[in-house]
Amino acid sequence: MNHNTVSPAEVRRVACIGAGVIGGGWVAHFLARGYHVTAWDPADDAEARLRRLVDAAWPALTELGLAAGASRDNLTIAPTLEAAVSDAEFVQESAPEDLALKQDLLARIDAAAPAGVVVSSSTSGYGMTEMQAQCATPQRLVVGHPFNPPYLIPLVEVVGGERTERWAVEWASEFFEVAGKSVITMDREVPGFIANRLQEAIWREALHMVANGEATVEQIDASITEGPGLRWPLLGPCLTFHLAGGEGGMAHMLDHFGPSLKSPWTRLEAPELTEELRDRMVKGCEEAADGRSIAELVAERDRAVIAVMRAVENVRKGGS
Amino acid sequence: MNHNTVSPAEVRRVACIGAGVIGGGWVAHFLARGYHVTAWDPADDAEARLRRLVDAAWPALTELGLAAGASRDNLTIAPTLEAAVSDAEFVQESAPEDLALKQDLLARIDAAAPAGVVVSSSTSGYGMTEMQAQCATPQRLVVGHPFNPPYLIPLVEVVGGERTERWAVEWASEFFEVAGKSVITMDREVPGFIANRLQEAIWREALHMVANGEATVEQIDASITEGPGLRWPLLGPCLTFHLAGGEGGMAHMLDHFGPSLKSPWTRLEAPELTEELRDRMVKGCEEAADGRSIAELVAERDRAVIAVMRAVENVRKGGS
Repeated sequence: MNHNTVSPAEVRRVACIGAGVIGGGWVAHFLARGYHVTAWDPADDAEARLRRLVDAAWPALTELGLAAGASRDNLTIAPTLEAAVSDAEFVQESAPEDLALKQDLLARIDAAAPAGVVVSSSTSGYGMTEMQAQCATPQRLVVGHPFNPPYLIPLVEVVGGERTERWAVEWASEFFEVAGKSVITMDREVPGFIANRLQEAIWREALHMVANGEATVEQIDASITEGPGLRWPLLGPCLTFHLAGGEGGMAHMLDHFGPSLKSPWTRLEAPELTEELRDRMVKGCEEAADGRSIAELVAERDRAVIAVMRAVENVRKGGS
Repeated sequence: MNHNTVSPAEVRRVACIGAGVIGGGWVAHFLARGYHVTAWDPADDAEARLRRLVDAAWPALTELGLAAGASRDNLTIAPTLEAAVSDAEFVQESAPEDLALKQDLLARIDAAAPAGVVVSSSTSGYGMTEMQAQCATPQRLVVGHPFNPPYLIPLVEVVGGERTERWAVEWASEFFEVAGKSVITMDREVPGFIANRLQEAIWREALHMVANGEATVEQIDASITEGPGLRWPLLGPCLTFHLAGGEGGMAHMLDHFGPSLKSPWTRLEAPELTEELRDRMVKGCEEAADGRSIAELVAERDRAVIAVMRAVENVRKGGS
């Protein structure tokens, strides 16, 4: 098929299909980045709710810094899905998580959007292969999975389906970067992508604990906000444990704590800690450390934990 | 047995048994809070390593604010475990995760520490019931599980074993609070306690993904630091999803996303979403929200995410 003739940096008009918490969050983000946004949502009160959401997000977006020309006036509500996408240079779909519904909406978007325009779905977990099933030109459909709220959390996971062409994945990844997001481009479909698999593991363990009276909602939340949650904005789970290994890093951590990987610390079965997995983790952490010694990483983590604690404390006291 | 006659607020002398990453972190924390600390560790280079760790932590602790009288000079290295605990008013054990070793060390600590002094173990996952097996006065032994680094991360999980008496759990919880920690007091033993169960679920899912080539170490870490990790310092997993439900909160979230709980988004099986579990989650979130509307929580989260992102960005650029 024709590639999109608009380059990612040239995009001015974005269409958002579905304007709930996620779709509305995308609208707020794109408006703040200076785009003209056309939105469509079938709900009766969709426009009022969307404008309320954008208004609520605007102080935060203003505080972060609006792009030149950014304005809430650049939002148009379209009467139909087809009208919303008819002159779009990029389309983001954020309908409820219902496979049949998404298949239908994506086919309609595909039929109505200009040829070559990339269409991205916010789905939290469906694969594009199943979602693009009814599309006439599935080559241009990708998943662009954001995190709540999409106007603040940088992460977008981009991945195609079996019938998606590589150029569309690359175009979408570049577009999201230009639009101010942090992009992880995946080279294959994994249910739940990456962050949701990790987040969902925590969530399910939490639900099990509440269901079994092992912990309360309050204890679960406090165990994260007062504990590991303070490290994760700077260091992901891998680098966090790289530092837990002391001067020996991830290698020491795996060799030392390897046996307790089989302990019943979560309901999730552990993988076999093969030499290959061990080496892959160690190598990955060394690459991520990028020459910084454990001591340097520890000093950086300490500064970050203090800064994060102070930031959160200040917000809890009502400051900004 | 005799209760500890020193009240938690009166403690001046703390013994730390084991001085690796965790034990040394405790030493740094207690020194910064103004305690006199006696440490013992069997390693040949233990003292040099410990003083290096304390020195590395001291700038962060100074930045946070030292307690009156706090000084690195208040650290004494004892020649034996018995000498270290002989006049302690509180003992924290942080030996390697080896059950037989911990059983032996705790029995030796129990034999040498003054009657009634509370002895706490940093274990990441063993239950006190199994660890206290060889102790003459197991009534005073508790788990006091910290997070790395113990001198910065506030969380301590406190729980007793079957032979621990209630007063010891309460005394330890109060002592850790006085010593500047955030305490979760558990009323029963759960392998891995609370935060480690949640953290371990993420970690195992991450290891599986790396083992299967589904994601790299770099992608896993970025998916957290650029994504959900930015929300967790303010909102734990439960309140995070309370906000993901839009104006309907956790109730809408569970009713809407309930079915996708069965999706293969992680290798961890989901629990049955019974009416009782649903109601418990909804009630817990309402209690945690403590009268704040979803809109107020969203505004608070937005301020926090921005503040956290800026804090981390500043640290990454080399600032404090």
